[in-house]
Amino acid sequence: MNIQFVKQLVSTYKPGFSLEQAFYTSDEVFEAEWQFIFKKHWLYAGNTAQIPKAGAYFLYHLQKNSIIIIRGSDEKVYAHYNTCRHRGSVICLQDKGNAPKLVCPYHQWVYDKDGTLLNARMMPDDFCKEAYNLHAVHVKVVEGLIFISLADEAPSFEAIEKSLAPYLKPFEINKATVACIKNYTLAANWKLVAENFRECYHCGGAHPEYCGAVIGANLREDTGELTLTKQKDWNANGLETKLIEVTGGTTTYAIRYPLRPGIESYSIDGKKISIPMGLHKNHDAGVVGLVNYPNFWMDGVSDYIWTMRVTPVNASTTDVEFCWLVDANAVEGKDYTLERLTAFWEITGDQDGKLCEDNFKGIQSDAYQPGPYAAVEDQVINFVDWCVNTLKEGLNENK
Amino acid sequence: MNIQFVKQLVSTYKPGFSLEQAFYTSDEVFEAEWQFIFKKHWLYAGNTAQIPKAGAYFLYHLQKNSIIIIRGSDEKVYAHYNTCRHRGSVICLQDKGNAPKLVCPYHQWVYDKDGTLLNARMMPDDFCKEAYNLHAVHVKVVEGLIFISLADEAPSFEAIEKSLAPYLKPFEINKATVACIKNYTLAANWKLVAENFRECYHCGGAHPEYCGAVIGANLREDTGELTLTKQKDWNANGLETKLIEVTGGTTTYAIRYPLRPGIESYSIDGKKISIPMGLHKNHDAGVVGLVNYPNFWMDGVSDYIWTMRVTPVNASTTDVEFCWLVDANAVEGKDYTLERLTAFWEITGDQDGKLCEDNFKGIQSDAYQPGPYAAVEDQVINFVDWCVNTLKEGLNENK
Amino acid sequence: MNIQFVKQLVSTYKPGFSLEQAFYTSDEVFEAEWQFIFKKHWLYAGNTAQIPKAGAYFLYHLQKNSIIIIRGSDEKVYAHYNTCRHRGSVICLQDKGNAPKLVCPYHQWVYDKDGTLLNARMMPDDFCKEAYNLHAVHVKVVEGLIFISLADEAPSFEAIEKSLAPYLKPFEINKATVACIKNYTLAANWKLVAENFRECYHCGGAHPEYCGAVIGANLREDTGELTLTKQKDWNANGLETKLIEVTGGTTTYAIRYPLRPGIESYSIDGKKISIPMGLHKNHDAGVVGLVNYPNFWMDGVSDYIWTMRVTPVNASTTDVEFCWLVDANAVEGKDYTLERLTAFWEITGDQDGKLCEDNFKGIQSDAYQPGPYAAVEDQVINFVDWCVNTLKEGLNENK
Repeated sequence: MNIQFVKQLVSTYKPGFSLEQAFYTSDEVFEAEWQFIFKKHWLYAGNTAQIPKAGAYFLYHLQKNSIIIIRGSDEKVYAHYNTCRHRGSVICLQDKGNAPKLVCPYHQWVYDKDGTLLNARMMPDDFCKEAYNLHAVHVKVVEGLIFISLADEAPSFEAIEKSLAPYLKPFEINKATVACIKNYTLAANWKLVAENFRECYHCGGAHPEYCGAVIGANLREDTGELTLTKQKDWNANGLETKLIEVTGGTTTYAIRYPLRPGIESYSIDGKKISIPMGLHKNHDAGVVGLVNYPNFWMDGVSDYIWTMRVTPVNASTTDVEFCWLVDANAVEGKDYTLERLTAFWEITGDQDGKLCEDNFKGIQSDAYQPGPYAAVEDQVINFVDWCVNTLKEGLNENK
Repeated sequence: MNIQFVKQLVSTYKPGFSLEQAFYTSDEVFEAEWQFIFKKHWLYAGNTAQIPKAGAYFLYHLQKNSIIIIRGSDEKVYAHYNTCRHRGSVICLQDKGNAPKLVCPYHQWVYDKDGTLLNARMMPDDFCKEAYNLHAVHVKVVEGLIFISLADEAPSFEAIEKSLAPYLKPFEINKATVACIKNYTLAANWKLVAENFRECYHCGGAHPEYCGAVIGANLREDTGELTLTKQKDWNANGLETKLIEVTGGTTTYAIRYPLRPGIESYSIDGKKISIPMGLHKNHDAGVVGLVNYPNFWMDGVSDYIWTMRVTPVNASTTDVEFCWLVDANAVEGKDYTLERLTAFWEITGDQDGKLCEDNFKGIQSDAYQPGPYAAVEDQVINFVDWCVNTLKEGLNENK
Repeated sequence: MNIQFVKQLVSTYKPGFSLEQAFYTSDEVFEAEWQFIFKKHWLYAGNTAQIPKAGAYFLYHLQKNSIIIIRGSDEKVYAHYNTCRHRGSVICLQDKGNAPKLVCPYHQWVYDKDGTLLNARMMPDDFCKEAYNLHAVHVKVVEGLIFISLADEAPSFEAIEKSLAPYLKPFEINKATVACIKNYTLAANWKLVAENFRECYHCGGAHPEYCGAVIGANLREDTGELTLTKQKDWNANGLETKLIEVTGGTTTYAIRYPLRPGIESYSIDGKKISIPMGLHKNHDAGVVGLVNYPNFWMDGVSDYIWTMRVTPVNASTTDVEFCWLVDANAVEGKDYTLERLTAFWEITGDQDGKLCEDNFKGIQSDAYQPGPYAAVEDQVINFVDWCVNTLKEGLNENK
């Protein structure tokens, strides 16, 4: 990694302005981000509803790594690098599945779900099996959301747990139903995708459907009084309403805000999508918005959760996974249809994906210069600050 | 850029022989060419018939840059970098269109056609709008042909204007009709594409259609007497016939030469293609051949113009745009058909494209060595000399 | 090339363990391998049955080189770099064909099949034709198998000839019929493809069809007695049975081993595929397995030969060519069908290709570490040793 180049770049950062071109386009910055941001912080991987029983697993692909996220016989969630300790073959070949044991397809070395090497056929008597368990990845679960860490030593999970748990609890994710997962690849730097989600300066012009559901998203309506009224209702129903902003190393954001009066859910027609999830008693829960830097955000309404997982591939490519969760007892075709469930975020996500890609195209121009953020883009400034500061810290520790 | 590598390579150049492999394949040379050739000289972008009225625009993609070429309310041609001064998004998303104003799709900043920032909503009172006009690109027009310069300070346009204007005038390009534009991507270094167009040593073997129209193209016929006779006719009709060869920094070439007796136009059957263009009185105008290094050449006959714009993408990829222009009053289906209009250069262009790609494949061989040019390849030597000398100059200024 | 990086890597090699990740993934190692392994040793190109008569040729693409392998008027095999000595164009455009003369498609320079420049039109009188013959590639033929060398000075061919000739002779390849050639591209480092072929630790789990034909391939059956019995039969029929292991610079391996009793050929149903090839008197010849590092192996049974040519494209991509040969007099549809002929190795090859690609995916993990080979993987250790030692030698000579 060209540390000097990144250091120099970081030193030119001017708060309140968009980042210099190289932050979005250079391989050096991307490598530094991978090292000092993605390999340092907790990353959202998926949720426990995706692996409801022992042996259920899914893979999370991060750069050249494939990570097996698997439910153990003890119900706990385990994460392993998907590489055999013999000659390195990947072990799980499918992106999701069920595996009573993890058997390498090449020479049939057999591992337990917790990563223990159980059998390596035809190896000599003095072969030390204990030395060849699967390489483990740190894993934490908060109310059904699975986070992993590729750091040697995992950072504290306390702030994330404390911030997200009260908001997540009523959804009962661990018992929920995964209705749909969709994957997208965007031709844009991952930070542009994150920035896009952190401001509504663009919403009025870009998101008619979203603005139709969320009051104030167009930045032209005062929502103060409505919010206060709704907060009382929500508190009466045991729903968390306290704005949470954890900043610094771990940076987490949690909020509940109202839907437009008369709107029951995130839907094109404003009508409810499914039965209330988990502990929700009715369709009046507003929107729960959760963010955890660098790769997670979600919006939850009373009857469904939509999560977004952001995975940088390289400086100019970003994978995005949408997951829609509904109540454990919701039955497709009866309580909800996939079409209505996914329409709202597919439309809004397409709009945002296009904006991000066009943003990235323009940033690559020789003439691009950092421009001034508007006041309503304060959360973008927060995110960009966090990125630059996290890089700076990592670079300093690394000198 | 590895200046030393390019300098060393340039110093090995042996006039009269094709270039060393690295001139055609190395990223370093390509980077140096971009810097010292393409960002220094006037580049052909298109013609004014493509943007007939105020707000009409097209984009020219050069490396990571997208350039908006737009007609202003004052009929003048403007060129801007297609990147918003706010957060850098591209503003024009389509490759051509009409825009009364240039509005960024992300946060709706509004620019005038001349690049002036008109409105940036929700920015603070002390925001200095004047500081955020679109970044301008130098632009010049000669008789309807649009040239741009990415240099900080634009070079003189005088020689180009003086050389091309007398040949272009009779075509009245500004009033002409754009009949067809086609884009091709060639797997070849851009210089091989330019070299190919500068010699007819290959014509006899490769271009039966072209040799059928152009006397002498096969290098086996003496055209001296015919040319002298025709020049008298052309002069009598007010058509320029003086050979123009500007060399040095700006390198421009302009010539008029005869079609085979009985041939009326560049067509497969030798018959005319359309009504005479602009000021042409009949179908007897021979061929006007114009070249301007590094990226432009065209052939014009009495009833149509075919232009070729060469855009290097990287050392091994070159974009080519063909544009066919006919008279302002020519009506498709009545005065000409697209099929007959485009056939001649599509066939000839395909033949040349294949030759260039095969040339490039072979040059990449470990065994490739510069080979001797034939005497009839003198204009290739001229081009290659110009490239090497222009590089050398740039490298010297840059030391 | 970053010699220091490769030297350092080579010095970490631990025999008995799979190679460090960078051996399989780094461009530097690949470049060193190309230089010190592929440009140093004899490479299998194809066989003489592919070019049965004067002027018949095929191309072998090696990195950026295209090599013409052509039969001369004197029946000898010639190999030339496919790049014209004029301006470098490739001369032969098709991957195989017949050419009485080699004529460059660009400017029609004409070469003889042996590479002599015969005619370069319009070149000046003082042009020294003799200086512009095609650049030659070293070529050797052993019993119909064609090997080439890209080295300046070709290494000795003696050991290869001596080892392979006695096993190849009965097949009479020079007179044989090329029944089928298929090309595959694998997303795996070339060494993984070679390693895969050098052990049967994986056969029991991966290759039911192969294990159905070859006794002992599952590593669970003792084949000692059967082999001794069969060797007597084979010797009586004049078939070579001596195990040949040449190691060091040239590394060649030749063996004959039995099919399962009752099995007549490499086929899904165990029945014969075609008429016996060449001098074979019946379908009892077992399997002839031949290997020559770095890019050749083949299996021959009494009625057909299957060859495999491995061509590295880059560190993560490998081209593989399968060729099936049958007897000169075998008639398709009567004596054999293509479907039955190719089924066995297409199925087995697909299984191996998938294993290699999955092996490569897993090796790219951040967590990958060299793992211990099993005792039955001794030939993999032999191959990996050879690679590392050959690299080491090259690096030392190059200091």
